Amino acid sequence: MNSQLSPRSSGLLTDLYELTMAAGYFQSGFDAKATFELFVRELPRERNYLVAAGLEQALQFLETVRFSAENIDYLRSQPIFKHVDRNFFEYLSQFRFGGEVWAAPEGALVFAQEPILRVTAPIIEAQLVETSLLSTINFQTMVASRAARLIMAAAGKPVVEFGARRAHGPEAGIFAARAAWIAGCAGTSNVMAANIFQIPAYGTQAHSWIMAHGDETQAFASFLNVFPEQATLLLDTYNVKAALQKIIASKRKPAGVRLDSGDLAAQSCWVRRQLDRAGWKDVQIFVSGDLDENKIADLLRRGDRIDAFGVGSALVAPTDARNLSMIYKLVEVEQGGRTREAIKLSESKSTFPGKKQVFRSSDKRGKWTKDLIGLQSEDSKGAEPLLAPVMRDGKRLSSAEPLNTARRRCSESLKCLPMRLLANTSARPYPVQHSRALEKLLRQARERVHRKM
Amino acid sequence: MNSQLSPRSSGLLTDLYELTMAAGYFQSGFDAKATFELFVRELPRERNYLVAAGLEQALQFLETVRFSAENIDYLRSQPIFKHVDRNFFEYLSQFRFGGEVWAAPEGALVFAQEPILRVTAPIIEAQLVETSLLSTINFQTMVASRAARLIMAAAGKPVVEFGARRAHGPEAGIFAARAAWIAGCAGTSNVMAANIFQIPAYGTQAHSWIMAHGDETQAFASFLNVFPEQATLLLDTYNVKAALQKIIASKRKPAGVRLDSGDLAAQSCWVRRQLDRAGWKDVQIFVSGDLDENKIADLLRRGDRIDAFGVGSALVAPTDARNLSMIYKLVEVEQGGRTREAIKLSESKSTFPGKKQVFRSSDKRGKWTKDLIGLQSEDSKGAEPLLAPVMRDGKRLSSAEPLNTARRRCSESLKCLPMRLLANTSARPYPVQHSRALEKLLRQARERVHRKM
Repeated sequence: MNSQLSPRSSGLLTDLYELTMAAGYFQSGFDAKATFELFVRELPRERNYLVAAGLEQALQFLETVRFSAENIDYLRSQPIFKHVDRNFFEYLSQFRFGGEVWAAPEGALVFAQEPILRVTAPIIEAQLVETSLLSTINFQTMVASRAARLIMAAAGKPVVEFGARRAHGPEAGIFAARAAWIAGCAGTSNVMAANIFQIPAYGTQAHSWIMAHGDETQAFASFLNVFPEQATLLLDTYNVKAALQKIIASKRKPAGVRLDSGDLAAQSCWVRRQLDRAGWKDVQIFVSGDLDENKIADLLRRGDRIDAFGVGSALVAPTDARNLSMIYKLVEVEQGGRTREAIKLSESKSTFPGKKQVFRSSDKRGKWTKDLIGLQSEDSKGAEPLLAPVMRDGKRLSSAEPLNTARRRCSESLKCLPMRLLANTSARPYPVQHSRALEKLLRQARERVHRKM
Repeated sequence: MNSQLSPRSSGLLTDLYELTMAAGYFQSGFDAKATFELFVRELPRERNYLVAAGLEQALQFLETVRFSAENIDYLRSQPIFKHVDRNFFEYLSQFRFGGEVWAAPEGALVFAQEPILRVTAPIIEAQLVETSLLSTINFQTMVASRAARLIMAAAGKPVVEFGARRAHGPEAGIFAARAAWIAGCAGTSNVMAANIFQIPAYGTQAHSWIMAHGDETQAFASFLNVFPEQATLLLDTYNVKAALQKIIASKRKPAGVRLDSGDLAAQSCWVRRQLDRAGWKDVQIFVSGDLDENKIADLLRRGDRIDAFGVGSALVAPTDARNLSMIYKLVEVEQGGRTREAIKLSESKSTFPGKKQVFRSSDKRGKWTKDLIGLQSEDSKGAEPLLAPVMRDGKRLSSAEPLNTARRRCSESLKCLPMRLLANTSARPYPVQHSRALEKLLRQARERVHRKM
């Protein structure tokens, strides 16, 4: 139960209704091919863009998802599957995802309503993977999007991801570090993530190091003995000023000092003056302590002398914005040689039908001017398509992209975004329109639905 | 990289500074035994109690945490470990957690400042496990505590955990389902969690089922063919009233219907009337759609006819309260036969020293009257101690507790809580005091620290 707890490729990593619908499609002989699109209905308040992340883990899941014999035994034991044909379980034992996937690459910027991922596959396959695709991409996109804001607030000063202990379990911590790196964080405190993804690992020392030694001078000296070149010493266990004076009096220069509580702007200025007076101009001042983009911006406004920020909760467990409410919606069904666009009409939650593409236009200087959400089949008229094919017949079209490519894409993309959208407050939204062909398709689909009602 | 991505027992599941401090303690020969306590500094706003959860996974980690040869190679390759003695890496290759753990059992209610877990071990062992203990217990405790509020709001109607797609990745979804079950949710949509933890699995059907069929009548009939006794049909894909009329006209009674958007209270009343008129008094009305405790309470106030609630985001990715800010603090150090209490004094963040216990008093009817945080060594004077020993010499003192025991403990505990604290708004806090012995120890430790400054 322990190490096998979360087999990342199990078909049971899904909501029950995906499996009951699968049984329903199977048993009723509904053998359509379906297209689903994954997107965010609207941006959270004060967010002007999203940074796409998590595609790599989504593709890994699609390539490897299987039902083990134990998985199938479990399903058969559930009362709800009592009347389901045994051929369905035989089908599950052979289950593979064999569909086609188009996606926005990781690090790309996306806006509300724009498909981030599009899946076309036999309907059972396309449906079963919904829950895992959503949880994987929703989470990393949320973290990467938040990280971009924090980095923007820090205005060039490094932001390090410090969230492992605040993440929703160890796995979430690892992928949060990955997403934060894509968006431009300077590194992570998470050693496992640093190892797996080759992200720079950062660390200082904890209050417990000082508390355990009792004597602060001795605690600092002892750490410097082991890390003569890289020690960052923590100042605020008892009293910041006294701690710094002890360090300076010891005449042993650390690589940096860290502040974790109190008035960080004022403290950083005082600490900088003392360090400079000691001739230690290259000693870095690192701060942490429940920081977010507003607190960072405030510190900068107040003329701090901080060199780098460590951010935990705000990155990995953001509470400032509702969940992204990413959704995965059926947009097209092909059955018996006929194609039918699918829409949902419930009051506040309508969706556009059809296989879509996003066409992004730029001006001569490369700044983006607008996005047009159109049909995949439309002419791009020179605009840049956002979605590219990444998987066909269940096989990836290329090997995993180096994480630094996604990271570079994100930083390059942010330069193309109209300036006003880089603000951490609500700006006039980036223009995203729907094409005429798409509007027409929506009208037709609506009329068809209304005729049937 | 894929299936081995998150080995749940790797020593690298930690922050870098835990490992640099470990190297520091090792190399400087600081061989103290340390006691750390894990607790929440203050309750989030409008929270009157917390439901402890995640201990089982924390103990599994402590029992199995190891450094593989690859883990150690990675660490040795990092520049920061350049000056670290090779004996340290030899030590890591043999690393085991061999300490003692006391804990509040899962499902117990805890308050601010009360230790949920206490670890006593050689300082390197006690320190290294901090990050994993925090991320495991912080997350499940947060979800269980939120679930208790949702269940309270639902006033006896079942609440089902629907959050898999909103969770911070698949693993977080699984443990969220577990924590929600401890707190009293009726089940989960998460099939993997249902399988692993033997929690009832719930599911209905998605809008895509209706959309794929195009014809709603046929979509409902087809689902009923496969699930004649357990089908819950989704009403709001196009138009709730039209959908229900089609179902009633078909004369095939479903087990239930689901509403996912719009005015759920008004709709549920209308749906109930139609169902009753059709003689279908036992057809259940299930609702979902971004629900939280306030929306649920509002539905009940408005006289809904809802039978059960499905809740996702609010449970697994709560944005209503800051992270719990659970911490793991050094409280005592034993070295060379001497015991020293450890405290932190930084402005807003002081902590109490010493190995603590929580003594909970009740009145004659079994209602709790107050908690006293005292020293482990104090006489309980008839009050109930919250913490019990669960691990000694790195070995569990008993096998894993059945999840239903934790679930029962939670529901029994909620009955013992003074009524006012069950409200989902801020109530006069539950009385938690510190014992005189503890206050005295704090004074002494403060004086000692001040003398040294």
